Amino acid sequence: MTTEPMTSDEMIQTCLEHTMFSWTATGKVSPLPIARAEGVYMYTPEGKRILDFNSQLMCVNVGHGHPKVIAAMKQAAEGLTYVFPGAATEPRARLAKRLAELCPGDIDTFFFTLSGAESNENAIKAARLFTGRFKILSSYRSYHGATNACMQLTGDPRRIHNEPGSPGFVHVMPPWPYDYSFGDDEEQITAQHLRYLEETIMYEGPETIAAMFVETVTGTNGILPPPKGWLQGLRALLDRYGILMVCDEVMCGWGRTGKLFAVEHYDVVPDILTMAKGLTSSYVPLGAMGVRRKIAEHFREHVFWGGLTYNAHAYACAVALAAIDVLVGEGMVENAAKQGAVMREEMDRLIAKHPSAREGRCIGLFGMMDVQKNAAGESIAPYNGTHPAMGRLAQFFRDEGLFTFVRWGSFMCNPPLCITEEQLREGFAIIDRGLDITDEVYEG
Amino acid sequence: MTTEPMTSDEMIQTCLEHTMFSWTATGKVSPLPIARAEGVYMYTPEGKRILDFNSQLMCVNVGHGHPKVIAAMKQAAEGLTYVFPGAATEPRARLAKRLAELCPGDIDTFFFTLSGAESNENAIKAARLFTGRFKILSSYRSYHGATNACMQLTGDPRRIHNEPGSPGFVHVMPPWPYDYSFGDDEEQITAQHLRYLEETIMYEGPETIAAMFVETVTGTNGILPPPKGWLQGLRALLDRYGILMVCDEVMCGWGRTGKLFAVEHYDVVPDILTMAKGLTSSYVPLGAMGVRRKIAEHFREHVFWGGLTYNAHAYACAVALAAIDVLVGEGMVENAAKQGAVMREEMDRLIAKHPSAREGRCIGLFGMMDVQKNAAGESIAPYNGTHPAMGRLAQFFRDEGLFTFVRWGSFMCNPPLCITEEQLREGFAIIDRGLDITDEVYEG
Ligand SMILES: Cc1ncc(COP(=O)(O)O)c(C=O)c1O
Ligand SMILES: Cc1ncc(COP(=O)(O)O)c(C=O)c1O
Repeated sequence: MTTEPMTSDEMIQTCLEHTMFSWTATGKVSPLPIARAEGVYMYTPEGKRILDFNSQLMCVNVGHGHPKVIAAMKQAAEGLTYVFPGAATEPRARLAKRLAELCPGDIDTFFFTLSGAESNENAIKAARLFTGRFKILSSYRSYHGATNACMQLTGDPRRIHNEPGSPGFVHVMPPWPYDYSFGDDEEQITAQHLRYLEETIMYEGPETIAAMFVETVTGTNGILPPPKGWLQGLRALLDRYGILMVCDEVMCGWGRTGKLFAVEHYDVVPDILTMAKGLTSSYVPLGAMGVRRKIAEHFREHVFWGGLTYNAHAYACAVALAAIDVLVGEGMVENAAKQGAVMREEMDRLIAKHPSAREGRCIGLFGMMDVQKNAAGESIAPYNGTHPAMGRLAQFFRDEGLFTFVRWGSFMCNPPLCITEEQLREGFAIIDRGLDITDEVYEG
Repeated sequence: MTTEPMTSDEMIQTCLEHTMFSWTATGKVSPLPIARAEGVYMYTPEGKRILDFNSQLMCVNVGHGHPKVIAAMKQAAEGLTYVFPGAATEPRARLAKRLAELCPGDIDTFFFTLSGAESNENAIKAARLFTGRFKILSSYRSYHGATNACMQLTGDPRRIHNEPGSPGFVHVMPPWPYDYSFGDDEEQITAQHLRYLEETIMYEGPETIAAMFVETVTGTNGILPPPKGWLQGLRALLDRYGILMVCDEVMCGWGRTGKLFAVEHYDVVPDILTMAKGLTSSYVPLGAMGVRRKIAEHFREHVFWGGLTYNAHAYACAVALAAIDVLVGEGMVENAAKQGAVMREEMDRLIAKHPSAREGRCIGLFGMMDVQKNAAGESIAPYNGTHPAMGRLAQFFRDEGLFTFVRWGSFMCNPPLCITEEQLREGFAIIDRGLDITDEVYEG
């Protein structure tokens, strides 16, 4: 099939000439040429090594090129690869059973999709069909996918460019708003924010609201673990009004936070849990919507008005089983918790050292650092904006072989869950030097 | 990973207990247990052989378990499987270049997705962003996917259960309405229907319409090749008003109709062409939106406000290349045209023999037969309805080991494009016996 391997230039030129790139203008993109990847490292065709400090899009949880997953892919290719969604297959049965064992509470029934967006699309359907209600609440600081309805579910500015979109979506402030606070400490924030939410529900009309979607731990929009008691309070509040709680664990699920699912930190069981990314560690595309027994029972009698050609794709289900075996079997969830403590320590060290380092948030290996321009803690870049020093920081990371995302006034720290302490410190050593760039523009 | 292979009962019980099924209530579904598949045949765990007369969901175009595709899957698993969408990779570059060679006209730039729905979602975005207009026209007899916006793009009754949905979608009658006609012959139908369309455009306001989506050959909703001259006339009409023409070739593309893309029959180049299914013959999920140069140029300067984690998934791109090599290299497109003539002959034979066989439509190996209840040609089942004899026909096909879909008053004939004449006649021999069932209720 392949002839001579392509050089970086050939890859870049051909991709720019014949493909479109997401969330950008093709003329402005400078694609990173990648030929192979192993563990926490990627390599350009010319052999330059790059440390993956974001698990790509927080999704290659078990790391790149894991021999057990590759072996399973080769074995599964010899088996049944695809049959129509009305078929019962062994990979479908085994994966669903395994997920039922692993998911919290009585979430034991699954609808398989391909992506985070398609999982949320189906969760919107399920919530509306189950409750007979239409409106959906979600947070302004959220990302739920790029299909038309998921864009409206989303709070981040990418939504705006996709408006007008699907109706019925109502956005609420998260417990952590942008630059003010619902209270002086976490308990007060939780209490006040839940009152704010209840008031919103009252104005919208509880009998019109099917569900509230939350990222258990907000991802792209800030890596924001909820304040103490908030998710438990939210669960009780939504129950009071018969509103379903949907936890989007597309990004925060599958070990990222140091627990298999992020909800385990908060001891709540959502009515619907959506997932993708870490479910297969991205070796092949697969997503899923998991529902509690009461919802599964409902759809025993009532038609579920959704579907997709690749529902329960047998090959993808088989690969997911292998990726889960590696993640769980090799203790990577525990490693995420353990290395999360190292990340915390490194972040604290950088904050103490660099005046421009304002804050570092992390839970497990789900982390982000904010950069400030002054002692008042003002972000170096405005909301949805940039600052030249952040551009230079991004370029520095790229030159130094650290792969991560720099957005607005922050940058991401989300390595694969197989990372060692040494590799993690290697990444933070690059960040340490990088922060000298933003220190230079710190105004004091 | 696997232990003892599951029996049919185990597969069925576990799938019913732990998974949801599409477009149905779990309590009403009777899943078909499948353990393996090869060429045009699938096998139950107990070894019963089933002839695949629908390529699953018209998607396994090269047939099941093709050794060359399997070999490519195993080889690709050893290579780069996934990197983020901002990367340039060899599989992405090679696939895009190959598609640019194969696609009609100057469609030479591609945005990779996972499914038909996600390809259409992105085509909606691209059309709106390119034109600055909002409304989208599509046909009442169409299926474009199950995400919220694609459901509204869709005309078939599954849309209704997903309403209210995304706004801005306007449905038009197709050139072949349900039970009347736009004219006495194809030329008149084309002329009258295009006048009807232009009148609709006038009432909607041409300056508000971004695009019209058409399935080049309508699939699920009837296998309806357009009347003579219609697509050419549509191209001219839309050009007159600056409305983009989007051809959805998710089902009819990749050789199904006896040409690589169905538009080749009609000698038109759409502005956007969407695909999935046959692109990989379903071995792994992949979809794509192809755009003409003028649209690609637009997005060199303007941001494309769309994206997905698995955009340009390297492993899926590599497998697509192999599936295309097999489809094209083994002459399966030509075989679809050749066996299409055999299908035509078999359909004509059955229509002559069975009073209940009203009509058979086919183009290449894209075929469907309609069943009538009387000499007036009335369908045996109403629109979106059923008839007990059609249920018995479906059961007969299942018992006899013929896999296809029976819907309303019709059934599908869409085998893999590698089918031989002998295998095709084997399928029609079962259909021949099955039509005795519907003949029994024929009223004369
Ligand atoms: C929380 C969350 N939900 C949904 C999605 C969408 O997933 P996908 O890109 O697979 O559609 C993402 C993607 O980043 C996400 O982070
Ligand atoms: C014409 C057409 N468009 C789009 C789709 C949706 O594709 P998917 O099921 O991959 O989302 C289909 C599926 O059958 C189709 O036939």
